[in-house]
Amino acid sequence: MKTHLDCMPCFLRQAIDASKLAGANEALQKKVVDKVARMLPDLPLEASPPEIAEAVYGVVERLTGGEDSYKRIKQKSNKCALEIYPRLKNIVNSAGDRLLAALRLAVAGNVIDYGLPNVFDIEEEIEDCLKKDFAVFDYDDFKKVFSGAKNILYLLDNAGEVVFDKLLVEEMAAKSVVCAVREKPIINDVTLDDAKKVGLDAVATVISSGSAIPGTVISKCNKEFLECYRKADMIISKGQGNFETLASQEKPVFFIFKAKCPVVAGEVGCLVGDIILKRQQPD
Amino acid sequence: MKTHLDCMPCFLRQAIDASKLAGANEALQKKVVDKVARMLPDLPLEASPPEIAEAVYGVVERLTGGEDSYKRIKQKSNKCALEIYPRLKNIVNSAGDRLLAALRLAVAGNVIDYGLPNVFDIEEEIEDCLKKDFAVFDYDDFKKVFSGAKNILYLLDNAGEVVFDKLLVEEMAAKSVVCAVREKPIINDVTLDDAKKVGLDAVATVISSGSAIPGTVISKCNKEFLECYRKADMIISKGQGNFETLASQEKPVFFIFKAKCPVVAGEVGCLVGDIILKRQQPD
Repeated sequence: MKTHLDCMPCFLRQAIDASKLAGANEALQKKVVDKVARMLPDLPLEASPPEIAEAVYGVVERLTGGEDSYKRIKQKSNKCALEIYPRLKNIVNSAGDRLLAALRLAVAGNVIDYGLPNVFDIEEEIEDCLKKDFAVFDYDDFKKVFSGAKNILYLLDNAGEVVFDKLLVEEMAAKSVVCAVREKPIINDVTLDDAKKVGLDAVATVISSGSAIPGTVISKCNKEFLECYRKADMIISKGQGNFETLASQEKPVFFIFKAKCPVVAGEVGCLVGDIILKRQQPD
Repeated sequence: MKTHLDCMPCFLRQAIDASKLAGANEALQKKVVDKVARMLPDLPLEASPPEIAEAVYGVVERLTGGEDSYKRIKQKSNKCALEIYPRLKNIVNSAGDRLLAALRLAVAGNVIDYGLPNVFDIEEEIEDCLKKDFAVFDYDDFKKVFSGAKNILYLLDNAGEVVFDKLLVEEMAAKSVVCAVREKPIINDVTLDDAKKVGLDAVATVISSGSAIPGTVISKCNKEFLECYRKADMIISKGQGNFETLASQEKPVFFIFKAKCPVVAGEVGCLVGDIILKRQQPD
């Protein structure tokens, strides 16, 4: 997905939010804003928003010296999600369709996103996602591909959310599941360290994508990731960032996310707030 | 009020929205965005947001050639508001406190603002504003100053909203009321033409501020405005733009508006969505 002009104000807003979180004073925040504003005219709009976001957060990191400003937020998200994990597991255990219940909870977890200005209430989100209709719901196809799949590659998204993903991964225990995380901290995206802390490595193989783009750009991924990608006969992609970046013609990819910004909602043809289970259509 | 760094993404967003409304294609929209992005580092943050907005909308106008892009929106807002005017008048007529009912409706009208990305439902807004508590409510002071006032200067805000203001002006029939509008079209702000079209000139004197800033910067106003300002013993200021720009030490100013953005809400110490009747406090 290309970057839209409507993403420009959002990059600037993200730069300000990240600078504040890095503890920058107002003068330093202004330096960051000025630098990012001057970058905007030269940004390659044919790149995806997460690729540009990587550059924007890079500016923030270099100017503020804040290497992992979202660390605390991530730790807190993981902790809160682990606390409610037993309750979530009960929901799956008592569901008529366990896979669907886990899938709905995985969508609920997708609201834990600090790249966006939205505030959220995870309890409300869980309740909402358990009953609301999907705006795109390729579930029959999902079940079909899943039942025939041997090797599943699961592209993770954010810290905290990863606990919700764990529920879905656990429903895939009969398959070989590899979960991919970001190579380095960016925004509140999940890293190897986060995945281990929530015990995901006990239920699946966890690898790094090799890139710190908050999405999955195949050409930027490392050898280990590419090997898993090649072997996979089903790809599950969580969150907007992976949706915005991944375009696979040869693999069945299922995108699971909540549409949280107007640009992505426009791309899907849904409303902001809608929940999505979408199989990527070959061009 | 100074411009905050948080206003920067908003200026960019406004530039895009206004370009689209002016019918610019994507290439031209990008030209506008690039131009505004390059302006951002050099903007004087000590200026108020509406002063900078004037410059931003000026860029849009020059590059797109769209001189009054909000004309249709303004006409529609005026028309819709005039259609419900009789019903609004009935609400005032049957109210125990007519002045307060008219004041509440004036706040409701303040939601008609196309400088912001928010969508609104005027019917909901009316219902809401008639019953909800003000976050700041200097009404006793308002009544006291009002009862002693001879010459009231009423700073108008937007088209459509002006019909709601008319209700409040009509409750001030015993006083000499002068209403001030913008000199030239900017966003959906009310001009002389709009005010006349909704019949405001039949119940008050309507003058231009002499400036196209979407707010009231005294040093930029014309002689006629300054004369009315000098004579006024009460100033009523509608909307965020006038609040962001007006700082009067020598006059009792009452700001009436709905807090529609986080920066203004932060300045007031209220939440976005709160309704405000605030007397300006001398420094």
